[in-house]
Amino acid sequence: MTSQHANPIWDKIDAHIDENVDYWIEQLARLCAVPSVSATNESIEECADLVATMLREQGFDAEVLPSDGYPVVYAEGGGRSDKTLLFYLHYDVQPADSLELWDSPPFELTERDGKYYARGVSDDKGHIICRLAALAAVKDVLGTLPCNIKFIIEGEEEIGSSNMPAFVEKHKEKLAADACIWEFGGVDYEGRPSQALGMRGICFVELSVQTASIDAHSGLGGSIFPNAAWRLTWALSTLKDQNERILIPGFYDNVQPPSERDLELLAAMPSEAAKLMETFNLDGFLLGITDDLEWKKAAVFEPTCTICGLTSGYQGLGSKTVLPAKASAKIDFRLVPNQTPEEVVSKLRAHLDANGFTDVEMTLHGGGRPAKVDPDDPFVQLTNETAVAVYGKEPSVAPMIGGSGPNYPFIHTLGLPLVAAGVGYPGSQAHAPNENMRLDYFLLGTKHTARVIEQFAKG
Amino acid sequence: MTSQHANPIWDKIDAHIDENVDYWIEQLARLCAVPSVSATNESIEECADLVATMLREQGFDAEVLPSDGYPVVYAEGGGRSDKTLLFYLHYDVQPADSLELWDSPPFELTERDGKYYARGVSDDKGHIICRLAALAAVKDVLGTLPCNIKFIIEGEEEIGSSNMPAFVEKHKEKLAADACIWEFGGVDYEGRPSQALGMRGICFVELSVQTASIDAHSGLGGSIFPNAAWRLTWALSTLKDQNERILIPGFYDNVQPPSERDLELLAAMPSEAAKLMETFNLDGFLLGITDDLEWKKAAVFEPTCTICGLTSGYQGLGSKTVLPAKASAKIDFRLVPNQTPEEVVSKLRAHLDANGFTDVEMTLHGGGRPAKVDPDDPFVQLTNETAVAVYGKEPSVAPMIGGSGPNYPFIHTLGLPLVAAGVGYPGSQAHAPNENMRLDYFLLGTKHTARVIEQFAKG
Repeated sequence: MTSQHANPIWDKIDAHIDENVDYWIEQLARLCAVPSVSATNESIEECADLVATMLREQGFDAEVLPSDGYPVVYAEGGGRSDKTLLFYLHYDVQPADSLELWDSPPFELTERDGKYYARGVSDDKGHIICRLAALAAVKDVLGTLPCNIKFIIEGEEEIGSSNMPAFVEKHKEKLAADACIWEFGGVDYEGRPSQALGMRGICFVELSVQTASIDAHSGLGGSIFPNAAWRLTWALSTLKDQNERILIPGFYDNVQPPSERDLELLAAMPSEAAKLMETFNLDGFLLGITDDLEWKKAAVFEPTCTICGLTSGYQGLGSKTVLPAKASAKIDFRLVPNQTPEEVVSKLRAHLDANGFTDVEMTLHGGGRPAKVDPDDPFVQLTNETAVAVYGKEPSVAPMIGGSGPNYPFIHTLGLPLVAAGVGYPGSQAHAPNENMRLDYFLLGTKHTARVIEQFAKG
Repeated sequence: MTSQHANPIWDKIDAHIDENVDYWIEQLARLCAVPSVSATNESIEECADLVATMLREQGFDAEVLPSDGYPVVYAEGGGRSDKTLLFYLHYDVQPADSLELWDSPPFELTERDGKYYARGVSDDKGHIICRLAALAAVKDVLGTLPCNIKFIIEGEEEIGSSNMPAFVEKHKEKLAADACIWEFGGVDYEGRPSQALGMRGICFVELSVQTASIDAHSGLGGSIFPNAAWRLTWALSTLKDQNERILIPGFYDNVQPPSERDLELLAAMPSEAAKLMETFNLDGFLLGITDDLEWKKAAVFEPTCTICGLTSGYQGLGSKTVLPAKASAKIDFRLVPNQTPEEVVSKLRAHLDANGFTDVEMTLHGGGRPAKVDPDDPFVQLTNETAVAVYGKEPSVAPMIGGSGPNYPFIHTLGLPLVAAGVGYPGSQAHAPNENMRLDYFLLGTKHTARVIEQFAKG
C-alpha cells in the first residue's frame, strides 16, 4: 500500500471537491427530480436526455444510443494520456413505493442531518454525480483530463440489464478501454472502503402449470381432476433437496470452486454473521453452518435455486374450497463461474421433461453470466491503495458478492479490470423507502474516484 | 314405486302452490333483499330476525337461538299425527362478488325469461320459501298441519357450519324428529330429480412457515438463509405422491369402502364425465381413469388432499429477486366414512413433526365428519317415489356426493334419515354471479316437498 503522504495535487483536488459541493448537490437534485423508474417505463427518455445534457455541460461528447431496450447514454472526452477509463453507471431507479413510508417526497432531494434523501440518490444517481464531480476536480486542477474518459450509462439496470451484453458486443470498438469503474462502491458497517471484484450470474424463470380452463369446487374435483398446485409442488420438489443440493442433472458441471486467493480474501473480510442474524431475526444459517469462512464461501461461491414467489388458488383469510386450475412459481438461480443462464434453462427443461413435468411451462424473465476480476490486477491494487489514502482504512475486498449485475460483458467482452468506488453505505436504503446518501461519504467517494482517475492516468 | 294415479288431495295441493306463486315470489324477494353474507358477517342478525318473522307469519312458533357462532332460527308447529319432520336450511349466503359480473343487482330479485336472479335465490333462500310454500299448501288443503314440523335454519353454512355439531348436541331433545329434509335438492342435467344420501367430511387446514422476520434479497440470502417457500414446498411434497396416494401414516386406517348397494346406485347414475370434461376443459381424469364406475367411485368414496391455495413472496409480473420469509398453503381434506377431521389434524401434525417440519404451523379453518343415510330407509324410498310422481322421471340417487355439509349430527346425533328435495338445477350458479332459480323447478320442487310432507304424515 502507498503511504498516506502529503501530495499537493491531491490536496488541490480534494479542496476543489469540497468547495464545489453545493453545485454538485444542486446537480444531484436536478437528476433525482426525474422519476426514471425502469419497471414502469416512466421518464426514461427524459432522464437519458438530461444525463446527456449534463455530460455535455461538463465538456463531454454525449449521445443517446438506442439499444434493444431503453436508450443508453454514451459519452467520451479526450485526455492527456493514451489510456482510457470507462465508467459504467445507470440512470434508472427502483419504483418509489411504498410512498407512505417516505418522510419526504421521493423525487425531491431533501437534506436532513447530513443525509440527502431521494429515490436513486445512492443507486445510482449519486454515483453519476460523484464521477462528474471527481472528473471536474481533476480536470480543473490539472488543466485537462489526464486520460481518455468514456461513459456508458444505461436505463435498465434495475430490471436486469438484459440488453447490456448485446449492446456491449455491438459497440465493442467504441467502448474499448483499459479499465472500468463500476456503478457502485462505498463503505461497510465499520466505515471501511468496500471493494467487490465479482458478481454471481442470474437465471430468473417462472414455472407455471394450467390443468383446467377454470377452477373447480374441491368437493367436486378433489379426487378426479388434476390440481395445478399439486403439479407445481411436485415439480418444485424435484429441483432441490432438503440438504440444499440442486438436483437438476449437470447443474454443477461447470462450477469453478473459489481459488486459494479468493478464500484468503474472504477470510480477511469482517464477518457480518451477527449483523445478518439480527437484521433478519435468524436462528442460524442454512445447514447449521457456523464456521465463518464456510458461510462466507457458501454465501457467494455456491450457486442457488431460490423460490422467490408462489401463487395458486385462494390466498385470502380462512378457507375457500377451491381446486386451482393454475399455479406458478418464480425461481431465481444465482450462478457462479463458469455457469451460464443458457445451460440452466436447457438443463431445467430437460429435467422437468424427464420427470414427467412436460405440463410445467417455463418463462425466462432474465439472465446474466457470473464474472470476476483478478484480485491482483494492478488497477484493483491502485483502487485499494488510493482507498487507504482517502479513507485512512484498509479496504474490505470481496472476491465475489452474492448479487448480480452486467459485469460479464465488461470483464469478458471488453476485457477490462473493473472496480468499485463510490458513495454507498450500509444505511443507504437502496431499493427501499427513504433511500439516502451521507454527505461525508459522498465527499470521500468522490475524492477516492478522483484519485483513481489521476493515478490511473499516470500509471 | 307408486303409480302416478290421480289423487284429489295432491291435485288440490298442486293447485294451491300454482295459485299462490306470486305471493311466494314476493316473500322470496323480501328474503333475498337482506344481504346476509356470513363470510363478512353482514346483515346476519337482521336476516335471522326476518326468517323468524316469516315463520311466525306462517303460524310457527319461532325463536332466534344463540350458538357459539351466528344465531340459529328454530321454529316448530304441531300437527295432526305424532310424527315429526325436521327441515334443515340456512339463511346465510355466499359473497356477491364479483359484482361487475352480475346482470342485475345481486340483492334485488329480478325475473328474466322464467328465471329469478339474486344471491341466495337458490342457495338457500329459494329452499326456505319452497318449504314454507309447501307447508302452507298442505295445511290449507288439509285444514291443519298433518304432522309436527320443526325448522332449524342456521347462518354459517357458507362458512363451514362449524358450530352445528355442538348446537345439535346441545338441543338434542328440542330437535328430536323422525326424519329430516335437507337444505338442497332439485334436478340433474337431464331434468331428473336428484337424491343425495351422503356427504364427505372435511378438514380444512392452513400450513404456514416463517423463516425470518423480513424478506431478504435473493442475492444476499439465497445460499445461506432458510427460505419459507422451500420449507413449505418440501413439507407439502411429503403429503401426497404423484399417484395421488396420501402419505400421512394411518390416513386410510378408518376408511370404509363403499358397499355393494352403494356401487349399484353409483352404476345406475347417469355419467357426467363428458359434461365435466367439457366444462373444465380436461384431457382426462386423474390417473387416466376412464371406466365409468371407477371415476364415479373415486369422485365420492376416495378421501382427498387438495391444495386450495399457495402464497409466498413475489407474485406480480416479471421478476423480483426476493427470498420470502413467509409461505403458506390452504389444504382441504375430504373425508369418507369413518374418517374424522380430528384424526386428520393429529396424524398430519405427527407426520410433519416426524419429517422434521416442526417449523410448519397448522391452523384448522373448519372440519366436519362424513355421513351417509341408508339408501333403503323408508323415508328415502318415500322421497324417491313422490319424486317420480311429481317429475314423471325416475330419480338419480347418489349414495354419496363429493361435497360436505353438517349432515353428520343430524344423521348420527339425532338419528334421522335425511333426504334432498328442492328447487336447484345444474344452471343455478350457486356461489357464482347471476345465481338463479327457474320458476318451473321452483314449482316442481315445492310440489315434491309438499307430497313428502303429506305422505310422511300418513305413513
